[in-house]
Amino acid sequence: MNESADRAYGGARVLVAGGMGFVGSTLAERLVALGAEVRIVDSLYPEGGGAAANVAALRERVRIEEADLRDGPRVAPLVAGCRYVFNLAGRSSHMGSVADPAGDLGANAVAALALLELCRAHAPDAAIVYAGTRQVYGAPDRVPVDESHPLRPPDPNAVAKMAGEAYHLLYHRIHGMRALSLRLTNVYGPRMRVKDGRQSFLGLWIRRVIEGDPIELWGGAQRRDLTYVDDVADAFLRAAASPETAGRALNVGGAPAVSLADLAQMLVAANGGGRIAVAEFPPDRRAIDIGDYETDDRLFRRLTGWTPRVSLADGLARTLEFFRARRAEYF
Amino acid sequence: MNESADRAYGGARVLVAGGMGFVGSTLAERLVALGAEVRIVDSLYPEGGGAAANVAALRERVRIEEADLRDGPRVAPLVAGCRYVFNLAGRSSHMGSVADPAGDLGANAVAALALLELCRAHAPDAAIVYAGTRQVYGAPDRVPVDESHPLRPPDPNAVAKMAGEAYHLLYHRIHGMRALSLRLTNVYGPRMRVKDGRQSFLGLWIRRVIEGDPIELWGGAQRRDLTYVDDVADAFLRAAASPETAGRALNVGGAPAVSLADLAQMLVAANGGGRIAVAEFPPDRRAIDIGDYETDDRLFRRLTGWTPRVSLADGLARTLEFFRARRAEYF
Repeated sequence: MNESADRAYGGARVLVAGGMGFVGSTLAERLVALGAEVRIVDSLYPEGGGAAANVAALRERVRIEEADLRDGPRVAPLVAGCRYVFNLAGRSSHMGSVADPAGDLGANAVAALALLELCRAHAPDAAIVYAGTRQVYGAPDRVPVDESHPLRPPDPNAVAKMAGEAYHLLYHRIHGMRALSLRLTNVYGPRMRVKDGRQSFLGLWIRRVIEGDPIELWGGAQRRDLTYVDDVADAFLRAAASPETAGRALNVGGAPAVSLADLAQMLVAANGGGRIAVAEFPPDRRAIDIGDYETDDRLFRRLTGWTPRVSLADGLARTLEFFRARRAEYF
Repeated sequence: MNESADRAYGGARVLVAGGMGFVGSTLAERLVALGAEVRIVDSLYPEGGGAAANVAALRERVRIEEADLRDGPRVAPLVAGCRYVFNLAGRSSHMGSVADPAGDLGANAVAALALLELCRAHAPDAAIVYAGTRQVYGAPDRVPVDESHPLRPPDPNAVAKMAGEAYHLLYHRIHGMRALSLRLTNVYGPRMRVKDGRQSFLGLWIRRVIEGDPIELWGGAQRRDLTYVDDVADAFLRAAASPETAGRALNVGGAPAVSLADLAQMLVAANGGGRIAVAEFPPDRRAIDIGDYETDDRLFRRLTGWTPRVSLADGLARTLEFFRARRAEYF
């Protein structure tokens, strides 16, 4: 964070929707450290990333409400008076969205729209940052992918995220609100969901490598860029504090792209050992896979001064260290 | 219709969602004439186009259920065994979507997704055609607009329609379903909503010119292309019967574009008299107006052989004739 962005949060009332989740709780912790008055709302959707363990250290210093964003009477008082609203309350599972597209649409678009409407009524001057996804681009025509790339959502999750995001851009345009979306790529780090592959394949890999089980690699040639969660939290803070981000959907990248095969090797190296099993790509996953992806986030960096600080090797090491120490809570 | 498309419908079970509405009832009437076994489901949303008068002549020959598409237990039996499903059940009011964005999202995307899921379960081989809109393009970068134009929804209605449409393209890709979307431009003709400007400014103009009241023209330089409702019904029939349309979002245009000022003049001429009052563009409408629009529908014409048959002058004359005769039911 630069100093001016840091200063933006001291004493400011801030709502983190999905604040018991992976990115949300990391962001909430940063906000508390910056002196913000933090409110968290989380539905604790069982297949999502929300967990009591994520906010155990924050309990005394934030207000936490368990509620769905569509529950206006419960959420309106939390929104009132907020200077910043971060919406990390959505679902991110691609396969989960195929199995339950209506639930996915509800969580990512209906709920996001409900929150926007509550902000319009109760915090019209707040900056609102939506957790979007690079998944909206689908299989890219070219890499790196910048924001002018056509949107071709390859799974229901991406359709719902595309809609949720579009409302933010629209509310800036027609209602003058300071709303924007960050199109995140694969985020990893402490507190990510490792029980299964719902949030990211990497979560499952991390648990398996710690437990001494083989990592299952489908194909492996696909390239991905990953962002360490602290860098993502920093991106949200800068996005909301910048005067030039409103009304935009902005890519946020991270470390240089690597193939999944190389990523698996790096993880095994960071763990000091482990096995990799190459497997067939399951057909239901192949149907929604996007192939190689690499983000072009130069616009976001230029507008906010953001740059990722944590290398992939370092981030993997920190993540393994976290989960090794907290297996009882997270595995 | 060409003969092969005509033949597709004889004896076929067909569901028309929104079949008590403007386009839906016109389509249902055509289907009955072609020998289809027609089922209609309509929620009769008070601010929409559904009306008993629209299907008065069809009552004995179709099955009509009043239900919302999200009411699975009610709608599933209607979907079962259908060879064709036409979804004209959405909302189309731009200003209505600003006032009630959640209701708009529910009707255009949540309900459309629910219908797709019912089709996946109960009529997986059906061809499903969604009533999309050219509004998804927003203010065009260039005219005429073809399907490669970026999507920049300028109002909540366009966001919801963009999402509803995207699910159709996706369900083709990941579930192999014969789903597609037609991006309609301004549709007009008998049975359009004329009580107010909710469905189209032109509906209100038609009522006013018949009643001897002045037409209110905002600006007037904006160009629009209009499609006569019989041509739109024909487009839906061809789209569903064509093997090459599945998984696509296709523009459907109509008569050559005219300025709204010229359109007002044509309407007055067709009516044999009338007054035009030029007014300021209301700021809330200007905020979501898209400027000039003209569609490029060459791809749809090539794939289906469709071409509009009714000229604008002829269509306006037929529309005026219809509403003059049925003022009691429609005004």
